This record gives sequence, C-alpha cells and structure tokens, in this order.
Amino acid sequence: MTAKVSAGQPEAPRDDRGAAAIAEWWRSSITDIAPDQIRIRGYPIQDLVGTITFPAMVWLMTRGELPSPQQARLLETVLVAGVDHGPLAPSLSIARMAATCGVGLNNAMASGVNVLGDVHGGAGEQCMELLGDIVRDPDFASDASRVAAAHVEAFRAANGRYLPGFGHRYHRTDPRSVRIGALLEEAIGQGIVTGDALKAARAVEAVLAGKGRAVPLNIDGITAVVLLELGFPAALGRGLFILSRSVGICAHAWEQMQEGGRIKGPVPKEFTYAYQGPALRSVPQAWTGGSTAGKPNDADQLPDQD
Amino acid sequence: MTAKVSAGQPEAPRDDRGAAAIAEWWRSSITDIAPDQIRIRGYPIQDLVGTITFPAMVWLMTRGELPSPQQARLLETVLVAGVDHGPLAPSLSIARMAATCGVGLNNAMASGVNVLGDVHGGAGEQCMELLGDIVRDPDFASDASRVAAAHVEAFRAANGRYLPGFGHRYHRTDPRSVRIGALLEEAIGQGIVTGDALKAARAVEAVLAGKGRAVPLNIDGITAVVLLELGFPAALGRGLFILSRSVGICAHAWEQMQEGGRIKGPVPKEFTYAYQGPALRSVPQAWTGGSTAGKPNDADQLPDQD
Amino acid sequence: MTAKVSAGQPEAPRDDRGAAAIAEWWRSSITDIAPDQIRIRGYPIQDLVGTITFPAMVWLMTRGELPSPQQARLLETVLVAGVDHGPLAPSLSIARMAATCGVGLNNAMASGVNVLGDVHGGAGEQCMELLGDIVRDPDFASDASRVAAAHVEAFRAANGRYLPGFGHRYHRTDPRSVRIGALLEEAIGQGIVTGDALKAARAVEAVLAGKGRAVPLNIDGITAVVLLELGFPAALGRGLFILSRSVGICAHAWEQMQEGGRIKGPVPKEFTYAYQGPALRSVPQAWTGGSTAGKPNDADQLPDQD
Amino acid sequence: MTAKVSAGQPEAPRDDRGAAAIAEWWRSSITDIAPDQIRIRGYPIQDLVGTITFPAMVWLMTRGELPSPQQARLLETVLVAGVDHGPLAPSLSIARMAATCGVGLNNAMASGVNVLGDVHGGAGEQCMELLGDIVRDPDFASDASRVAAAHVEAFRAANGRYLPGFGHRYHRTDPRSVRIGALLEEAIGQGIVTGDALKAARAVEAVLAGKGRAVPLNIDGITAVVLLELGFPAALGRGLFILSRSVGICAHAWEQMQEGGRIKGPVPKEFTYAYQGPALRSVPQAWTGGSTAGKPNDADQLPDQD
Repeated sequence: MTAKVSAGQPEAPRDDRGAAAIAEWWRSSITDIAPDQIRIRGYPIQDLVGTITFPAMVWLMTRGELPSPQQARLLETVLVAGVDHGPLAPSLSIARMAATCGVGLNNAMASGVNVLGDVHGGAGEQCMELLGDIVRDPDFASDASRVAAAHVEAFRAANGRYLPGFGHRYHRTDPRSVRIGALLEEAIGQGIVTGDALKAARAVEAVLAGKGRAVPLNIDGITAVVLLELGFPAALGRGLFILSRSVGICAHAWEQMQEGGRIKGPVPKEFTYAYQGPALRSVPQAWTGGSTAGKPNDADQLPDQD
Repeated sequence: MTAKVSAGQPEAPRDDRGAAAIAEWWRSSITDIAPDQIRIRGYPIQDLVGTITFPAMVWLMTRGELPSPQQARLLETVLVAGVDHGPLAPSLSIARMAATCGVGLNNAMASGVNVLGDVHGGAGEQCMELLGDIVRDPDFASDASRVAAAHVEAFRAANGRYLPGFGHRYHRTDPRSVRIGALLEEAIGQGIVTGDALKAARAVEAVLAGKGRAVPLNIDGITAVVLLELGFPAALGRGLFILSRSVGICAHAWEQMQEGGRIKGPVPKEFTYAYQGPALRSVPQAWTGGSTAGKPNDADQLPDQD
Repeated sequence: MTAKVSAGQPEAPRDDRGAAAIAEWWRSSITDIAPDQIRIRGYPIQDLVGTITFPAMVWLMTRGELPSPQQARLLETVLVAGVDHGPLAPSLSIARMAATCGVGLNNAMASGVNVLGDVHGGAGEQCMELLGDIVRDPDFASDASRVAAAHVEAFRAANGRYLPGFGHRYHRTDPRSVRIGALLEEAIGQGIVTGDALKAARAVEAVLAGKGRAVPLNIDGITAVVLLELGFPAALGRGLFILSRSVGICAHAWEQMQEGGRIKGPVPKEFTYAYQGPALRSVPQAWTGGSTAGKPNDADQLPDQD
Repeated sequence: MTAKVSAGQPEAPRDDRGAAAIAEWWRSSITDIAPDQIRIRGYPIQDLVGTITFPAMVWLMTRGELPSPQQARLLETVLVAGVDHGPLAPSLSIARMAATCGVGLNNAMASGVNVLGDVHGGAGEQCMELLGDIVRDPDFASDASRVAAAHVEAFRAANGRYLPGFGHRYHRTDPRSVRIGALLEEAIGQGIVTGDALKAARAVEAVLAGKGRAVPLNIDGITAVVLLELGFPAALGRGLFILSRSVGICAHAWEQMQEGGRIKGPVPKEFTYAYQGPALRSVPQAWTGGSTAGKPNDADQLPDQD
C-alpha cells in the first residue's frame, strides 16, 4: 500500500523515509486535513455543518458514506432512546462516584464508558450477532420460525439460557421497544429498510412466548434490530450504544458535580460491609523472628471483638 | 430534603430507614423509572423518541428542559463540527493504540475520552469563561471594545499570552468557525439568540487583530460562543465537546480494529527513543554486600557501548 | 538539547532527520535498552533483580538514584500500610463493579486508579505541601509551634477547616499511623532521616489539640511525613499512594471476579433511587406539531402514578 | 451464606434488613475494619507494617495467606524485573501523552494501565495457562519432551505460531530471564519451589530450538514460570504484571510532567499522517435540497489540492 501524504504541512521535513514511515503508520481514511481545509470522508466540513444531522455524522464517521435522511432518522431513534436508565447502572453510578473524587468531567465520563464491556454494554452486539445469523441462514426466507428456534437452541446450548436483547428484569413491556418498533414498521412500509431483522426478532419472540410468559424485545434488542436493518456490523453496535449512553453518563456526572459531595461511596456512610475472612491471627515466626508470634497487637485493646 | 421514593418496585423492602437512606443517597432529577415506564425529565420516553432530535435529547438530559427546535439546530452545528481533527491528537491516537492492545471498543474509547482534560479538552470551557465575563461586565453594552481589551489583558496577566478559542497552529481561517459563524448570524437575525457572546468574541478578535496578524475564532472559540448564546454553563461545555469528539474517537478506534495490528506504539518499530540518563554504573555496596560493586554485569558483553 | 540515539537497533533508518526528531520527541532518562541489554538509570537490570527490593526499585525509577537499604525500608512501611481500607472507598467499589461488567482485570484496575484524584487520592500530596511549607519556613527551627499555627491558620483561610492528613471520620487513633510513627522515630534515632517533617506534623497536632479533642495524624498524614523525610516531592506523593492502593484495587477486583456476579450496581437490586425531577408532562407543540401535546403517552396506562 | 456484619460502627442503623442486605452485597474477605482496628486477612495491620515486605503484602492481599520470606523474595524478583521496557510500549507512551493533556497523575496512570489487555499485558497469563496445562498433563513426569511438543502443537493449531512467553522481537537473550532463571534454580535447589514449571518451560524451549534458532523464555515467560512455581492462578498473573508495570507508568508520566509540554501527540508536530479516504466530493441532494450539490465549498478556494 502506498501512503499518500497529505499536502500542505509547511514545516514538514522534505520527503525522507522517516516522514513517509510515520505517515503510513498513522494512515486513516476518515478526515483529510490541510491548512484551512477539513474534509470528512471527502466532504468539506462546512458543507456538512448545518446540512446533515448529528446522527448522520455518526454514520458518516463510522461507515464512510452518508446515510439518506430517512436512514439517519431511524438511527436517531435508537440514539435518543438509549441515553439513560437511571443512576444505578454501574456505568452511571461509577461516573457519579468519580465526579466526587476530584477528577475532571472527562475522567468521570471515561470511568463510566470504561465499564460498558461485554456484559454491561455488549447485549446489543450479541443480539446483532444472533439475529444476523438467523437472517443469513439460507432457510430464513422459507421458514423463519424453524430457523429462529434452531438458532435460539444453539445459542442457549453455547451460552446459557439468557438471550441478549429479550426480556427485562424490570419492565414487562419496554416503552422504548414499542415506540421504536412502531417507527421501524413505518420505515419498512416506506421501503427504507427490508424488515428482515425485525422478522427474525419477531420469530425469536414467538419461540420464547411458546415456552411460557412473553419475553419481548428489550431496548438492546430493538436497537440491535434497527442497527442490523441499517447495515451496521455487530461489533460497531457497542460503539453506537456508547455514544448514546455517554449522554446519560455526562448528565449524571454533571448532576453529581452540582450537588457538591466529596468521595461518594456506593452507600451512605452509616452502612458497612460484611467481613467474611479469617478472624484475628498472629504473623508467623518466619517473619517476626518469634518476637510477636502468638500475640497479635490489637488483642488486648479490643478484647471483645472476636 | 425529603426523598420521594419512586413507586412500583415490587421487591423493595418496606419503607424502612435503609431503603430511604439509599434512595436519598442516589437521588436524581433526570430519569424516572417504574415498571413499563421511563420518563426523561418528566417526558415519557416514547413521546421523545422519533419526535425530538439527538441534540435536543443532549440538551434535555444535561439542562432539564427541552430546547426549541431552532435552539437544538444551533447546538447540532457544534456537535457535528467537533467530531474529529485527524488521528494525531492525543485522544485519537491513544484510542487507536488502545484498540490494538486486546481491550474492548469501550475501553479504547474511554482511554481517549480520559485525556480530554483541562489542556486538551478545556479550551472551549476556558473561552466560555472569558467571554461570559465580558458579556456580564456592566460596561459591555456601552463599550464592548474597551471591556474586551481589559478582560484580554487581565486574562493574559493571569494565564499567559495564549488565549483559548482564538487562533490555530495549523489553520489561518478555520472553515468550521466560518460556517458556524454564518449560521449563528442567521439565528441572531431570527431572534433565536441575543448575539451578545458573538459580539464579545468579535470584540476580542478586534483587540487581537489590532496587535498584528489576525487571530480569528477557532473551533473551540466558535463552539464557546454558540454554547454561551444558548445559555450553557462553561463547565458543561467540556461535556458537550466530549460527546462530539467521542464520535471521532469511536470511528478511529473502529478503523484501527479493522486494520488488525497488535500493540501499536506511537511510532513504527524501526524508530527508537533517545536515552539521556546516566551511563553504565554498578550497584552500591550497601545493596550487594560488596560482591559485585564496581563490576556491572553487562560491561564485558558490550564493551563498546559506553 | 542534543538527542543521543541509543545504539543497536538494526532496522533503524540511517541517521536522517526523521529518526532524530522522533528520538528527541520520546527522549527519556529512565531505561536504556539495546539488544540483550536493559539498564535502569544506568544499572544493568540483572544487577538489580534479586539484589534490591521492590520499594527500592520504585525509588530508583521515580527519582533516578538508588536509596540506601534503610531508606528503602522506611518507604516500604508506607507502601505496605496503604494497600487497602475496605471495599467501600470509591476506588475499590468502582473496581469491583467494573469487574462484573465484562472487562479485563486491567480495565477494572484502571477504573479504580482513575478516581484517585485531588480529593480521593490527594490528601497526602496536600499534606506534604503544608508540612513542607512549615519545614521550609525560616523560623521553623527556632519556633515550630508558632510557625505551625500560622500555616494552619493560613491553610484554613484558603481551603476551609478540613486539614488533609489529620483526623479520621472512623478511627480515633489510626493503628497504621502509630506503628509507622514508631518506626520513623527509630529511623530518626539512627540518623537515616532528619525528623524535621515529623516535628512539623507534631507541631500541627499540638495546634489542633489545643482547640479541643485530639486530631492525630491519619494514614495520609504519616505517609506524607515519611515521604517528606525521604525527600520525595509532594506531587509524586500521589503516585506512590496509587502504587500502594493498586494492590488493594487488584485484590478487590480479583475477589469480585471469583464471585462471578454480573453487572453489579452500587446497591442490591431491591433498592431504588429517589427521583426528584419534574412530574409527568407533555412534549411541547413546537416539537410535536400539536399531535400529542397535552396528552403524554403513558398517562392512561398508569393513571395512579401521579 | 450468612453475612457477619462487622461490629463497631456507631452510626449504623440497627440491624434492619436494609443494612444486612447492603453488608451482604459488599461482603469481602480481605480487610476487616472497626474503629481503631484494621486487619488484613486477619492480621492486625500494625503487625505487618515494618515486618513483612511489600511483595509479601501483595501475596497476602491477593491470595489470603502470607508467603514465607523465601517465597516473597522469589515473587519480588519478577516485580522488580517487570517495571519498564522504555517509553515506546503503548501503556507507557499513552501515560506520557495523557500527562500533557491537563489531567492528574492518577488519570495518566489509569490511561496506561487500561491498555494492559489480552494482547499487551496478557502474554504472561497465556504462558501460565500453556505451561500449567503441560505440568498437569498426566504424562508430564514420565515424558516432559513429548508432552511439551504435543501442547505446543495444539496451542499453535488453536492460536497461531506465536507462542506467548518465548522469544523477543528485540532481545536474543533477555538479561532479565537469565538472571531470574538463575535465582529460580537456587530456590529449586533449596526446596522452596518444585521446579515443575521451569522443567515444562525448558522442555518448550527445547521443542522450539529443535526447529531452528533458539527462542528462549522472555520476561513474560520467566515471570509466568515463577508465578506458576509459587502457585498463582493464571488469571491473576496479569494483575501482578500490572502492579509491576505501574511503577514504570508512574515514572514515565512523572518524567513527562517535569518536561512541561502541552498536548503531546505520538509524533513531533512537523510530521503528519497519510489520508487514504475518498477525494473531495459534494453532499448529496437528499441533504442539501439541491442548493450546493455538485459544488463542494472548498473547491474554488484550494483549486490545486486534488
């Protein structure tokens, strides 16, 4: 691959091997910068500002091409819906606790974003993989129900009963899923997306409902469906969720900063934890040379502790 | 303050002191959740999804009230404009390096966000403080030029010559500032914002221009102006910049993950660093007991190194 | 400054400007590496391993020179004493929560370390500054009491009543401070350190005791005293505290990983938070075009909520 | 499991369900705290400070029991050896870059620690798994060579040719491995450890050497051997490496802070990156309404750019 070094850097060393090697090392296809010129994926930034929406910019940056305005609006629904679910999710409570420890808003936000890992932030990504497998199954068109049942069974055999994207500990019917589902149906009707991923998700819901109480799509699930319909790869799904949830993380860290506490722990200070380790004991003679063995220092001071 | 505990948590302990103390410890005015119900600042989430834009949601989450669609569009211009400035800013190169070290996309993004501190991410915030002080000066309405000059002088006396939000190492005229400035003028003409912050910024530009070559508003500066016009507090300015730049951080981390390298350092592996510390020496006798003093172990192997 | 590029990198580009500029950019005085050779501050690594202690290595790495074995032992007391104070400090609880979110041990530890900021990790650093100012006061030798009282008063006028390093919410007499204080007295007696910083700290204790109940040196305070006695700069004090507390962060994250929970929030799931924001309201007409104004979507479903 | 709530918290709510649930949620076997009492795994902290070494404390905290002084000294060798390998490893360069962005030392250190993931910090852990499998193979005692060959082949079939812990891009013979190997042989001779893991590692070296040039144990490999000999689980190996490397991360961040730069990117500012994405193009009519289509804004200003 030949690296094309951007023109226009007045102080750059003339074209020696060092500069070329560095340029190749840091190559990128996202933003092209020269003095007085910034282009995103080939579009002058000033042609985008005030013209495209923020969700369209998210799409352009991550995928390289602009979406249609209709596609961008569909992406916007999941970005709007995912911003927050209260202060007790670890990402949010961590950001709030961090905000009281004498660090910047950026550090508090990073602390929250950092824990949106495979388990906390990855349900949508895993759901995208499951549903994507179903849609790509050659028998999906002819027999979605059977294909969905087979993939659910295989998924559970490999990963346990919990199915990412379906059901919620707290909500029976997640109002976000219902609303986004309705908007997605509209978009399918208008031919903006195919509806295959939604069909796969409904087939999974039917499989689950057949086994007892309803386990409907939750917010991770409907988000996965929308992103699949829009052609996003599963692994990028987590990135989009992070961009959405970062708004909540920012808002909670900010709210906590307004309150002005110092060193907020997970519970009020009058609570404590349960120590469950060994009772009082003395340091072995190998370390003490025998001088204190058998006589732990705090035994006399606090005789009724143990 | 009396904590109103949200209704509807079926498994909650009855109203004992523990539950009330916990509820008060984690109190929040952002999101109200009950089974099958999620409200953001009082608005049912399903009324917001598909109705308001993502920038409007950012505003609602951080400030508590919905903006008008016109205000949201103005906020959107700075969110769109700030997403990226190439892979060599520390926040971006760190995210790319992190992405090659065997961590998740969330961790790579957190590593980038974490460094958007006082220096790297704080110029907009500091510019908001400077311009806000100018606007709030009682003489601003009658003599903006003199007020701006006085505040610039005071700022420089306290903080050094560099004025956050003005001038750029690389761009003479930042295309983002020009475009956002034009859109802001339109909004002022329509009465959406007052124009006071822009007036203050132009007065500062005039002060700086009077002293030599033009030092125009850069992207941090015009963003500061827009956020001030829209009524955001300065300290929240950094949060909004982070939300915007997180898009670039996500896109760069993702692009790097597609490339598939392992443990990417800051420069290609054929480069090295300059060691400038002490030359070869031997561990003092106090540590060795004299056995190796004066005879560092690698002296013979590499006789011509030093 | 002329960069001396380390010899021995076989693939390096010949001495062109690019390589020299890179070498200078990444210059360091800590570790000198060439093929089959690693030297720390000039000492061959194989002369240090098995010869000096880990605390001595911490000293060498951060300060550039080896301590005496006696100095290293004194440093070791504060590294050993500071490792943990239970799971409810934010740095620890955050690491435990992170460990349940599907991230690596490194990410869980980073999340904890990240919040050891000005407030949570900075007390020792601030105490070092206060005590250092007292010791450097020209009247300290002749009248430590008066100098201490003046500095305490000045500190409180500038920063509020709380004096970093003195007193504890929980312990009246911190067993760590008592033990380290005794070991420090021994070291003073042996001429290993001067005792000036301890004298300053005792003078501050006397000032505080004169005003009511005893407010003795806590672990941050005695650590500050030891580090000052050993000649560490105040700002590095935080780094040493982080190295010590990282042990606890590692142990707690590891213990949590053994338990195997998923997405651990700050409190058990049967608890909730208090929502204190606006009650149910409808999205303004400017956003809805009037279609849903005045009729929030969840009003009928949940009539007795508000 | 019944939670034993620590005694002695004067302000705690009486034994209601809330306090018990919280105590159980945050249960831990590491540190037992009551007023004026801190015990680590049952040992009063004041009995440990000045008595055991910092590596012994690392062992006690993570494993629950004290090592013998001999075991602690062996652990110390790998903690001392692993602190640094120059500023160009991503964890180090990231910490240095972070230190110039206006964040605290804790944030700079966290940024470095955060990237010690599966690839950058995980080689030792993977090597421990490989060697542990070899040692536990029932035929290991009778035919170590054949068992090692079989496990190497299986590992490579599953993971590719690269064998974690063996060979180094830069060093032919890593001076750290040679020195630690010699100290380990001594410990085996004294009966402190069995030597099984070292035997397994030597068998792997022989397998690799049989295929061409020597691929000896590197620092990750010898560290893995020592930790296995000492009975550490593989997954905790990464934690110990992080504790060691944190010293280097602290030292480099601190050295960078002393230099006083601002916003240090990965390369000096006269270098640039290679943009490899689309050339100049115009925003589609669907977004512009046709007004600017076909006429990108910066085409005229910068006619000779493309």
